[in-house]
Amino acid sequence: MKLPKKRDNDYSAEAIRERVKFLSKLSGHKPEYLTSSAIDPDLTRGNIENIIGFAQLPVGVIGPLLIHGEHAKGNFFVPMATSEGALVSSYNRGAHAISLSGGVNVVVTADSIQRAPYFVLEDVHKAKAFSQWIVENFSQLKAIAEGTTRHGKLIKHHSFIQGRMVIVRFYFSSGDAMGMNMITKASHEICKYISTHYPIIDYAIESNMAVDKKPAHINSILGRGKSLTAEVLLKEKIISRLLHTNAKAINAAYHRQVAGGLIAGALGSNGHLANGIAALFMACGQDLANVSESCVGQIHTEVSGKDLYVSLRLPSLVVGTVGGGTSLPTQRECLEILGCYGEGKVHKFAEIVTGTLLAGELSLAAAVVAGDFVTAHEKLGRNRPDSKPN
Amino acid sequence: MKLPKKRDNDYSAEAIRERVKFLSKLSGHKPEYLTSSAIDPDLTRGNIENIIGFAQLPVGVIGPLLIHGEHAKGNFFVPMATSEGALVSSYNRGAHAISLSGGVNVVVTADSIQRAPYFVLEDVHKAKAFSQWIVENFSQLKAIAEGTTRHGKLIKHHSFIQGRMVIVRFYFSSGDAMGMNMITKASHEICKYISTHYPIIDYAIESNMAVDKKPAHINSILGRGKSLTAEVLLKEKIISRLLHTNAKAINAAYHRQVAGGLIAGALGSNGHLANGIAALFMACGQDLANVSESCVGQIHTEVSGKDLYVSLRLPSLVVGTVGGGTSLPTQRECLEILGCYGEGKVHKFAEIVTGTLLAGELSLAAAVVAGDFVTAHEKLGRNRPDSKPN
Amino acid sequence: MKLPKKRDNDYSAEAIRERVKFLSKLSGHKPEYLTSSAIDPDLTRGNIENIIGFAQLPVGVIGPLLIHGEHAKGNFFVPMATSEGALVSSYNRGAHAISLSGGVNVVVTADSIQRAPYFVLEDVHKAKAFSQWIVENFSQLKAIAEGTTRHGKLIKHHSFIQGRMVIVRFYFSSGDAMGMNMITKASHEICKYISTHYPIIDYAIESNMAVDKKPAHINSILGRGKSLTAEVLLKEKIISRLLHTNAKAINAAYHRQVAGGLIAGALGSNGHLANGIAALFMACGQDLANVSESCVGQIHTEVSGKDLYVSLRLPSLVVGTVGGGTSLPTQRECLEILGCYGEGKVHKFAEIVTGTLLAGELSLAAAVVAGDFVTAHEKLGRNRPDSKPN
Amino acid sequence: MKLPKKRDNDYSAEAIRERVKFLSKLSGHKPEYLTSSAIDPDLTRGNIENIIGFAQLPVGVIGPLLIHGEHAKGNFFVPMATSEGALVSSYNRGAHAISLSGGVNVVVTADSIQRAPYFVLEDVHKAKAFSQWIVENFSQLKAIAEGTTRHGKLIKHHSFIQGRMVIVRFYFSSGDAMGMNMITKASHEICKYISTHYPIIDYAIESNMAVDKKPAHINSILGRGKSLTAEVLLKEKIISRLLHTNAKAINAAYHRQVAGGLIAGALGSNGHLANGIAALFMACGQDLANVSESCVGQIHTEVSGKDLYVSLRLPSLVVGTVGGGTSLPTQRECLEILGCYGEGKVHKFAEIVTGTLLAGELSLAAAVVAGDFVTAHEKLGRNRPDSKPN
Repeated sequence: MKLPKKRDNDYSAEAIRERVKFLSKLSGHKPEYLTSSAIDPDLTRGNIENIIGFAQLPVGVIGPLLIHGEHAKGNFFVPMATSEGALVSSYNRGAHAISLSGGVNVVVTADSIQRAPYFVLEDVHKAKAFSQWIVENFSQLKAIAEGTTRHGKLIKHHSFIQGRMVIVRFYFSSGDAMGMNMITKASHEICKYISTHYPIIDYAIESNMAVDKKPAHINSILGRGKSLTAEVLLKEKIISRLLHTNAKAINAAYHRQVAGGLIAGALGSNGHLANGIAALFMACGQDLANVSESCVGQIHTEVSGKDLYVSLRLPSLVVGTVGGGTSLPTQRECLEILGCYGEGKVHKFAEIVTGTLLAGELSLAAAVVAGDFVTAHEKLGRNRPDSKPN
Repeated sequence: MKLPKKRDNDYSAEAIRERVKFLSKLSGHKPEYLTSSAIDPDLTRGNIENIIGFAQLPVGVIGPLLIHGEHAKGNFFVPMATSEGALVSSYNRGAHAISLSGGVNVVVTADSIQRAPYFVLEDVHKAKAFSQWIVENFSQLKAIAEGTTRHGKLIKHHSFIQGRMVIVRFYFSSGDAMGMNMITKASHEICKYISTHYPIIDYAIESNMAVDKKPAHINSILGRGKSLTAEVLLKEKIISRLLHTNAKAINAAYHRQVAGGLIAGALGSNGHLANGIAALFMACGQDLANVSESCVGQIHTEVSGKDLYVSLRLPSLVVGTVGGGTSLPTQRECLEILGCYGEGKVHKFAEIVTGTLLAGELSLAAAVVAGDFVTAHEKLGRNRPDSKPN
Repeated sequence: MKLPKKRDNDYSAEAIRERVKFLSKLSGHKPEYLTSSAIDPDLTRGNIENIIGFAQLPVGVIGPLLIHGEHAKGNFFVPMATSEGALVSSYNRGAHAISLSGGVNVVVTADSIQRAPYFVLEDVHKAKAFSQWIVENFSQLKAIAEGTTRHGKLIKHHSFIQGRMVIVRFYFSSGDAMGMNMITKASHEICKYISTHYPIIDYAIESNMAVDKKPAHINSILGRGKSLTAEVLLKEKIISRLLHTNAKAINAAYHRQVAGGLIAGALGSNGHLANGIAALFMACGQDLANVSESCVGQIHTEVSGKDLYVSLRLPSLVVGTVGGGTSLPTQRECLEILGCYGEGKVHKFAEIVTGTLLAGELSLAAAVVAGDFVTAHEKLGRNRPDSKPN
Repeated sequence: MKLPKKRDNDYSAEAIRERVKFLSKLSGHKPEYLTSSAIDPDLTRGNIENIIGFAQLPVGVIGPLLIHGEHAKGNFFVPMATSEGALVSSYNRGAHAISLSGGVNVVVTADSIQRAPYFVLEDVHKAKAFSQWIVENFSQLKAIAEGTTRHGKLIKHHSFIQGRMVIVRFYFSSGDAMGMNMITKASHEICKYISTHYPIIDYAIESNMAVDKKPAHINSILGRGKSLTAEVLLKEKIISRLLHTNAKAINAAYHRQVAGGLIAGALGSNGHLANGIAALFMACGQDLANVSESCVGQIHTEVSGKDLYVSLRLPSLVVGTVGGGTSLPTQRECLEILGCYGEGKVHKFAEIVTGTLLAGELSLAAAVVAGDFVTAHEKLGRNRPDSKPN
């Protein structure tokens, strides 16, 4: 039993038809919607193999969200793709609360993307010497890395030594691309150079210290992709009118939830950053697997008179506005809605994402405190009677 | 500046048109593909608000993947949605390596979904007494919870006491649904009952110990959603022929990567579970935000003669085959390809997901060791010259 | 070059003399104080081998500390051994602040100690069946375990399955002993029974899931040794008079430090529990290596009017009042000062430890806020001019 | 009820007598051994307050341990203070196995100690600007810090921004002292300077990102105190003769325990580093509270032919050879046995500690595999019939 013998990277209508026919016969179900897209499959070359069609997820929009960033300035309407009823409405409510309170301040505090090869030396003494050699030859490694890419720059490195193994975590800037392909190629050349210029016993291009697509403390501490922080001072009246509660109550609940998350051994502390991350990533052509590290972040609240100060630290937002899935048709359109498609836009996009996440956090926190949480889902999370269990 | 005054939950063509028109005017870009879907927007009622169209991501297929589960038995062809070139090919290679080695064994080891309200008592002595009261009144709480749902069952609970605050983590089974809406409603009723039958000072429906949509050790230790484990004994010849390396080399690299991940403070230890999780979740109508906890898992390898034994523990796979996004048109079709749409299918689906993830892990690990990693991405991760930075 | 050929477990004056003579010759330094103790070395039989003398650490006392526990009730004076100047004074200040505010409430919320053997089966299907067999044969395993000990009881277990390996975490109660020796022996018999009554391929008595003497989330979540929680409502006047600050300032600083600790990836959240733990463990005959897991705990603060509510959750306090080092002469005396030597005392002792820790936390937090932190160390952390670098 | 009104820092015989008399009366027990020490209490000035005597713990010795460090070279006999029977014998066995295999290689890979104040600015934009100001004014801050100390040097810093709060983690070298007092004073001056030269709204000297005396990922990743790595190639014959097992068996067990520890959410991966750390810290005048972060480390094993390669990464060993408890009488003597008392010795001491820890790891791992674990404790962990529960 094999898939029809078309090559994996055949994007022709015929190849798709044969694959789908084969699957239909096997399963007894003929997919119609998967193959109904108006998109030319050839546009997905470089993004998929063995293509059989397009998965489709509805996109809603929230806004206006007033942002005071260094790159994103003004009111934004943000597209979010999800299947969770009430999510878009909840983020929308948060966006209004922020905008009416004067907007969200946000800045990018760091920007780099990592690969972390390991190298095995003869013993610990030689491992230590090698780690020193890396320091001394950094500019040479930088030249090699940057010879492979127009946009990538090797910025710095950290070495970690476990016995005779040296793990070198390389930090690159990758322009407006997410950058993993770019820096993997660059790291590959670095490894080749080292392995031919230094008495290495063994090496591999990745030690799991990148850490790509896994939640890990190193990313939360040292950053990965874009690191940002945002804040809003929610006004008493807005909290009362829109969120049906008050600063003190949200603050108390939040600090209790911090305690809960700490007991649970959660990374960071937040309500549901992953919801906003996933919805924005899906709409805007980001790699959905990067939800894993991008969703780690931390909310901090303080009562300020009768207002509520809320900040978000988002240390490892892995995004791009060129490359990857950004030029797929609907993804590009969503980026364009934000004015974020293409070069020179990635920091603006990162700021919008971060502001949106803060909106979602506020709305959820308020719903939990005010007891609206269940009723909102009851009201908006209902569709055809056959499709929802209860 | 406001979105057109249609109600959020208006799914009519006119409402969509007005929203899109408004966004086009603002951004200067008119989306075409977003609004080109053949899907009736009304079918998304309960999944989205303020709808403006459909995000579309290409779906590829891998297989056959030979699975020996308790629910999934035989050869499977698995749809995966992604924009990362080479991903589908890589998982496909892993699937072939597994199938030719005799298949992947997989079992579900636990199944439950959680909500964790907190309750504030007068002091620690009363908090302790309350935690005892919960134990003694569990059957009453169970009856209340189960009165709100046909499918949900309250199975057990854990209490955690921080001073006068008692956090109660309730464990439910939710049938074939992912279940968060279902158990939130049930927990809401539990909270209402408790707050009227016990001298509670304050409470909220969630303490962040659920832990929903956040990576956290409690999920990895105690499970969340479906917990599974899988294994394969990769044959020497297959490793050599398909993966271009050998058991000892993969094993050595893997254990070094475990060391790397431990230094980095990663949860679990794996190569890229998040890739497979995200691709399957997007194709098959799962909540993409649950990538955050579902992607935590652990690979363990042992050399067995010249073969390689590889196991995967996947403790917190949050999935469903009814409800949520599963009945959206393309998502339903992908579930049907797997024979996993609807009731009685969730364990089968979970086993297929887990087997697929193991395939992806093997292929990546081998590529890193054999040095194919960069070349595969170079070959398959290329599309139109304008769309990929380098 | 070898130590004099006395047997390791020779506690005679002559054996000690020969060992010390050998070391003196080698190092050129003759220890005088190490060998000056009034304690009969034979009393250390079972606690040390190759004995050369006694390490001596000064003990200070704090109090009165007013405790409202279930076992410790009334005012206590607590001995603490340390070399950190200002530590005893700081804990003493905290004790006074607590006592003047009405005392600390404290309860034991759980009590168990763990061993976690692993068992390797043939495949995952057999691993799952084995985990079920453990459930079904638990009472038999309990009988075997309890046949090895007068005090130990096997209470429950958790199974964790990674591929064909099943890790079984056994929970025991160990009476007033810390209990690791007791339950290791019991677990050894369990393993022997299982390996002769079930087709096990391999096993070992410990999988590192106990987790003994290592900081780990499982201990923090599920408890190890004694789990306690404590609280105090610090009165405005006391905060002002003794701690030179106010409730709001401590609360704000504390929540910012929670944020700091979260970014840093700390387990739990506290100022310096380890200081109190180590000082009490050294004075009172506890195993100093258990500082590693016992020091993990969590402070939570809330402003209550102008007072400050502070709670401490201490999930994994590993202590005993019989066995181990508790019957060594000075250690026994310190336990007697607390009225905690011997059987029936371990929960009382655990409550006193927890209350003392809370005192230390308050004092440090206040010192950081009020800026007394440096001056206190300057004043009390000074000794002979030659012995302190600056 | 109050302690006799002697001042806390009164070290006279009379003050001690009165305190002890008071405690005796209260408890009904008269301590004899606590007050029996030959040490002049005045020597503890700066280390303790409210002194009532000396806690005494037996010290055993292991060796020879053959070390190939950069600072420790040759055979060492290492004093360890503990109350755990069999511990000294077990470390001794490991030392012999290492020495007979050719010795342990060890290097110091990093050396720094941290304080991490937080500063609150007006908003995130000003927080970002402040973090830049710190970079630009680093040499000024360095001069201020170094004006407070002869030995401390400010090396570098990391900034972390959460909303309007900037946490600055300062890295110092502290010569041969552990250094916390020294750098606290230096950081205090830095804070004072900043608060008078920059529009800071609030600050505190510590944000919990130091992270002092708490287990935390940042310490494990970036180091704290001394970072070291060590290795040994255990010879087949030695493993067989001394450890009663073989390379493959230890390696297999170890990797299964890594899996166990990962599931448990342990920091690092090791058997019982805390045992060796605590025993050496107590003997040699280190701060016992620093067991909490020093005990985190990671063992990695690889089979090499029939030998076993074992490495240890110890990232956060907080030690000193001057200051703190190092000049207390018995502590100084133990350091002298190692040739490690005083200036210029701290790296040598750190290397000996690390080598000793590796010895303990090997012996325990072998005991678990060979099944000697229980019997060794049975044989050596027994003393007077009344003092050990079973």
